[in-house]
Amino acid sequence: MFNLGNFLTLSTFGESHGIAYGGIINNFPAGLEVDLDAVQHQLDRRKPGQSAIVTQRKESDTVKFLSGIFEGKTTGTPIGFTIENENQKSKDYDHISQAYRPSHADFTYDQKFGIRDYRGGGKSSARETVNWVVAGSLAKQLLPENVEINAYVSSVGEIFCEKPYQDLDFSKTDSNDVRCPDAETAEKMIARIKEIKKEGNTIGGTITCVIKNLPVGIGEPVFGKLQAELAKAMMNINAAKGFEYGSGFCGAKMTGKDHNDLFNQDFSTKTNLSGGIQGGISNGMDVYFRVAFKPIATILRPQESVDKDGNSVTVEGKGRHDPCVLPRAVPIVENLAAFVLADLFLINRLRRI
Amino acid sequence: MFNLGNFLTLSTFGESHGIAYGGIINNFPAGLEVDLDAVQHQLDRRKPGQSAIVTQRKESDTVKFLSGIFEGKTTGTPIGFTIENENQKSKDYDHISQAYRPSHADFTYDQKFGIRDYRGGGKSSARETVNWVVAGSLAKQLLPENVEINAYVSSVGEIFCEKPYQDLDFSKTDSNDVRCPDAETAEKMIARIKEIKKEGNTIGGTITCVIKNLPVGIGEPVFGKLQAELAKAMMNINAAKGFEYGSGFCGAKMTGKDHNDLFNQDFSTKTNLSGGIQGGISNGMDVYFRVAFKPIATILRPQESVDKDGNSVTVEGKGRHDPCVLPRAVPIVENLAAFVLADLFLINRLRRI
Amino acid sequence: MFNLGNFLTLSTFGESHGIAYGGIINNFPAGLEVDLDAVQHQLDRRKPGQSAIVTQRKESDTVKFLSGIFEGKTTGTPIGFTIENENQKSKDYDHISQAYRPSHADFTYDQKFGIRDYRGGGKSSARETVNWVVAGSLAKQLLPENVEINAYVSSVGEIFCEKPYQDLDFSKTDSNDVRCPDAETAEKMIARIKEIKKEGNTIGGTITCVIKNLPVGIGEPVFGKLQAELAKAMMNINAAKGFEYGSGFCGAKMTGKDHNDLFNQDFSTKTNLSGGIQGGISNGMDVYFRVAFKPIATILRPQESVDKDGNSVTVEGKGRHDPCVLPRAVPIVENLAAFVLADLFLINRLRRI
Amino acid sequence: MFNLGNFLTLSTFGESHGIAYGGIINNFPAGLEVDLDAVQHQLDRRKPGQSAIVTQRKESDTVKFLSGIFEGKTTGTPIGFTIENENQKSKDYDHISQAYRPSHADFTYDQKFGIRDYRGGGKSSARETVNWVVAGSLAKQLLPENVEINAYVSSVGEIFCEKPYQDLDFSKTDSNDVRCPDAETAEKMIARIKEIKKEGNTIGGTITCVIKNLPVGIGEPVFGKLQAELAKAMMNINAAKGFEYGSGFCGAKMTGKDHNDLFNQDFSTKTNLSGGIQGGISNGMDVYFRVAFKPIATILRPQESVDKDGNSVTVEGKGRHDPCVLPRAVPIVENLAAFVLADLFLINRLRRI
Repeated sequence: MFNLGNFLTLSTFGESHGIAYGGIINNFPAGLEVDLDAVQHQLDRRKPGQSAIVTQRKESDTVKFLSGIFEGKTTGTPIGFTIENENQKSKDYDHISQAYRPSHADFTYDQKFGIRDYRGGGKSSARETVNWVVAGSLAKQLLPENVEINAYVSSVGEIFCEKPYQDLDFSKTDSNDVRCPDAETAEKMIARIKEIKKEGNTIGGTITCVIKNLPVGIGEPVFGKLQAELAKAMMNINAAKGFEYGSGFCGAKMTGKDHNDLFNQDFSTKTNLSGGIQGGISNGMDVYFRVAFKPIATILRPQESVDKDGNSVTVEGKGRHDPCVLPRAVPIVENLAAFVLADLFLINRLRRI
Repeated sequence: MFNLGNFLTLSTFGESHGIAYGGIINNFPAGLEVDLDAVQHQLDRRKPGQSAIVTQRKESDTVKFLSGIFEGKTTGTPIGFTIENENQKSKDYDHISQAYRPSHADFTYDQKFGIRDYRGGGKSSARETVNWVVAGSLAKQLLPENVEINAYVSSVGEIFCEKPYQDLDFSKTDSNDVRCPDAETAEKMIARIKEIKKEGNTIGGTITCVIKNLPVGIGEPVFGKLQAELAKAMMNINAAKGFEYGSGFCGAKMTGKDHNDLFNQDFSTKTNLSGGIQGGISNGMDVYFRVAFKPIATILRPQESVDKDGNSVTVEGKGRHDPCVLPRAVPIVENLAAFVLADLFLINRLRRI
Repeated sequence: MFNLGNFLTLSTFGESHGIAYGGIINNFPAGLEVDLDAVQHQLDRRKPGQSAIVTQRKESDTVKFLSGIFEGKTTGTPIGFTIENENQKSKDYDHISQAYRPSHADFTYDQKFGIRDYRGGGKSSARETVNWVVAGSLAKQLLPENVEINAYVSSVGEIFCEKPYQDLDFSKTDSNDVRCPDAETAEKMIARIKEIKKEGNTIGGTITCVIKNLPVGIGEPVFGKLQAELAKAMMNINAAKGFEYGSGFCGAKMTGKDHNDLFNQDFSTKTNLSGGIQGGISNGMDVYFRVAFKPIATILRPQESVDKDGNSVTVEGKGRHDPCVLPRAVPIVENLAAFVLADLFLINRLRRI
Repeated sequence: MFNLGNFLTLSTFGESHGIAYGGIINNFPAGLEVDLDAVQHQLDRRKPGQSAIVTQRKESDTVKFLSGIFEGKTTGTPIGFTIENENQKSKDYDHISQAYRPSHADFTYDQKFGIRDYRGGGKSSARETVNWVVAGSLAKQLLPENVEINAYVSSVGEIFCEKPYQDLDFSKTDSNDVRCPDAETAEKMIARIKEIKKEGNTIGGTITCVIKNLPVGIGEPVFGKLQAELAKAMMNINAAKGFEYGSGFCGAKMTGKDHNDLFNQDFSTKTNLSGGIQGGISNGMDVYFRVAFKPIATILRPQESVDKDGNSVTVEGKGRHDPCVLPRAVPIVENLAAFVLADLFLINRLRRI
């Protein structure tokens, strides 16, 4: 209960100021020659300290596999892994150990569990996503080789990448610090984030993810619709506030006559407002979706708040925080999507006699 | 696997032209005096033929409980129920039995399962939601009595209910055919739907759902965040294209300084851009979210399409279909939310020693 | 939670004096031409009133499929079914409605749920097993055709079928009322049961089940070992008190030198004390196991007992009860085993890349 | 899938010659002051090298908790832990790397996964049970303090502890090397095991486990019966061949008149052939069960076998192996039972409104 995946499952643990993060992947098929460098590469894309516009915290974020892989191949038994925490500056949190930070989980954890790890976010820290990147980048390797999963930052604050995804060259996504493949927009976004950072403020944005060459048939009819499984996964990302796929919220303004995707004779469709999914099942067209991220709550400016007893206090973010979570969230979205797809891809192999 | 809920679970069956729909609710606590009229009332709100702006199909949609309730009380054992299908006009579908309807699930089901129930939507039909309404309206009775779950149509096409939900009187939601509590907007929406219906077209829209008085602590830290569980449930609704909660996609344009919800001394917050959820856990403020629905795909106009062999065909919706699914989706959203909340509410009772 | 199976799952409902039993089978692969007569045949083998040595209660036990099967083939969507209750003589239970019957579940249900369906066993009735027979006999059809699952009554009270299963002709199992394929032993068993019945008493026994031609590889390494899944299923049968496979409890008296099964060059083994399972995984040899059943608790003789308030009362079984549950349990064991095997068989298809 | 537990779950990883074992316990309630010494004490009871009659392999088997516990209390978030492997003498296995050992899982793993960790048992090693001891000894602390779970060796080969458990002093169990609380029987058992060891042979036996003071109501009516959950757990232990509870296989020889447990006025029962469970639910009497263990397959004598290609080979166990697994299995049975009970105990809190 409360794992990721249905057949292929990920169970995770870890807190921001604990000893280590880690997870167990169950039911990974045997015999896959795994590319562990690819896993570490994805972790490196997520890790802090990569550029001027993300947190300057340094963590090596090295994954260590403890089981399930032998002589470079998966053995079919559970894959256990850990990522050790380093460089936890618990002292950075002394000042907030008694306060509830606005729009953080301090209050709700305290209420729910009757206990709070005051050294930082504890379990609510987005550092949990290291586990997902490990599991997702392994799971990606279960999908047919030609399946491409590309996410990119499609907006930062009010700055939107106006080009449709079809006009973007995803090989450029990592060529700039903000991970928007359109160079011009990227420049504006970076400038905006630098400005925000200088103010000790933070800013939100959206990530668009495009999946190409997904086989037809992925997704389950009722409580395992492809879009629902993707939404669940994405809405578990710490700052996610919204999810839409295909025409999304815009589609809600349209009429059926304009929204329906007419078929070509090869069963592709002339348009793709459906976002590659019909009845919860992939139809062979591009699957694309968009995730909204709020500005992260830790700002380096004084804010009024309360402590555990309801006394007024002033909190001020210290330490090394991201002014904008978006660039680092790109590999999170991609690898989380990969895990969801690999799970449903495996299951689909059992749906016909 | 592929049930709704984690501890309190709903397993369902049924196809649009089969004998019956039904489901099993597992782990429903014993000893609850259940209001079965309330269940039937919710089904009646969902059923076709209620007004001029929904499908004129007539089905009594009467639920029959087969187990788990004895002398008006739940016994703690599985609650089985059925809703018989009536009035299936399979003939209405003869004309499309060989064709793949645009933006329907005909093609994907055929590809996935190698078999297609050509009598209509089969398993892909939104009639499946009768099961959810039954289960959700029972589950609602597990929540503290003061928890209020109110959904309403917040937009139809380009017509939006501009008032914030705080200014609406939810007791008015059912007072008009479109289920928008603002009479003036409702009128416009109804007019628009009638227009669309006359054209044989369909139209999309959004539903907003507001949950009041939810206790603090509902939702799980990592893969069971309250917003993720709600998103998963909502994105399983047949025409849903998007989900957002709290500030949602708008929040992605904001900065942290403006987005953070400052605490009052009673731990309520001055603003509620968080949508009543921090770190995946309810914080006692209103939980609110919005679901986007596409225009349904069956339009009563000729459309070009293909058959199973890729031959060009013309399809034209016949039968009795909804020009706008939104009014009937209001009870679906509410009761589905109720089920999700009841499941997490029960689980929360186990999270402290 | 609390379903049968891991991927292929069965969720059930029903009480002995309720309206109907039924279940939902999820994730049954599409495209299987199902033999529904075979299902009804298995139900008929289980049903009461078949012979002089079982209960004379009459129920037609007709299964009705409500979904998931179209034109004789599975569609891949949930298979819903019901078996209506008939001939419930609730009056038979009036005399015990206030009493706790010895070695029944009256007391524990009352304590656990705070409510008791005094019309009979309610949920604790073994009539629940009709659901398992339906699901198991369908699931059996998913296994390779040459897989044979044969159970038989191997002891009644002190009367044991001394022949090893290899010397028995399973085609004879149903040729006598007690379902022991050895005619001579069967006769003794039947005589013993008749004697017991005359006394208003009941008697226990064991069932042995033999699975031939099971492919190698079925079962999961750690928490899904084949023997553990079989044990779990069998120990859920109402009167089951023990489970052993291969050498079982006798094996516990042996030494490794004598117990080890040496390989032939074709990887079969010279002996089969392992019971066809190594490390939780089938090895291609016969899988065989034995289930112990207690004498059922309802005897047609006065017994001292207590009521809800602890007052002494005398209870005396009335109605139509089995003097020996074993003959009717044979199809239960076989079909339950079939379900477990089909589930693990499907899963095994995903364990290699 | 393939975890231990339903709500409180344990997911595990590890292979005998890998880097580490470990696990994740999900949904452990927050706020429990945990006794970690008690956990290590249980591990010490299980570890090799404790006495002359178990393997002389030395491993410190030190558990390291990585998350979920803060300042001595559980936080409600997943508890991750590892136990590092030390002292793996992979060389001990060189001689068998090409051979299939009789009654081991070499052949079945190779067939199932197409890959074999030839360094030893790999995933099939009983070293996996370290994980269960950690999880179970933590879970034990969730049960009411007066719940006592005592297992002991009740037979070794043909030597049985003839005394009923009621006449045994469980505080004596650990006072001898074989863990039988009856000193006289223990002596005989130890002598027998030493003899067997000298021969390079191994021997089987049984463990009896007695649970006192379990609250009434633990266990679920249909697919979560207490005995079924215990059976499943126990039958996952590597050498387990059989499980029985209460009267068990002996009960199968009895008649109802003799087998029924009559009530006292305080709802205790005069006898307890039921083994403390009625209808799958604990009734407040002692729960007791017995597990049969085969002699372990590794014997230090030459045996004929085959290699991967079906060629005849001779294998001879080397290294340090247990002549009798029973003494070390006592803490495994106890802690595994504790986990099962804690899971069902928590769930029971949700079964009434």
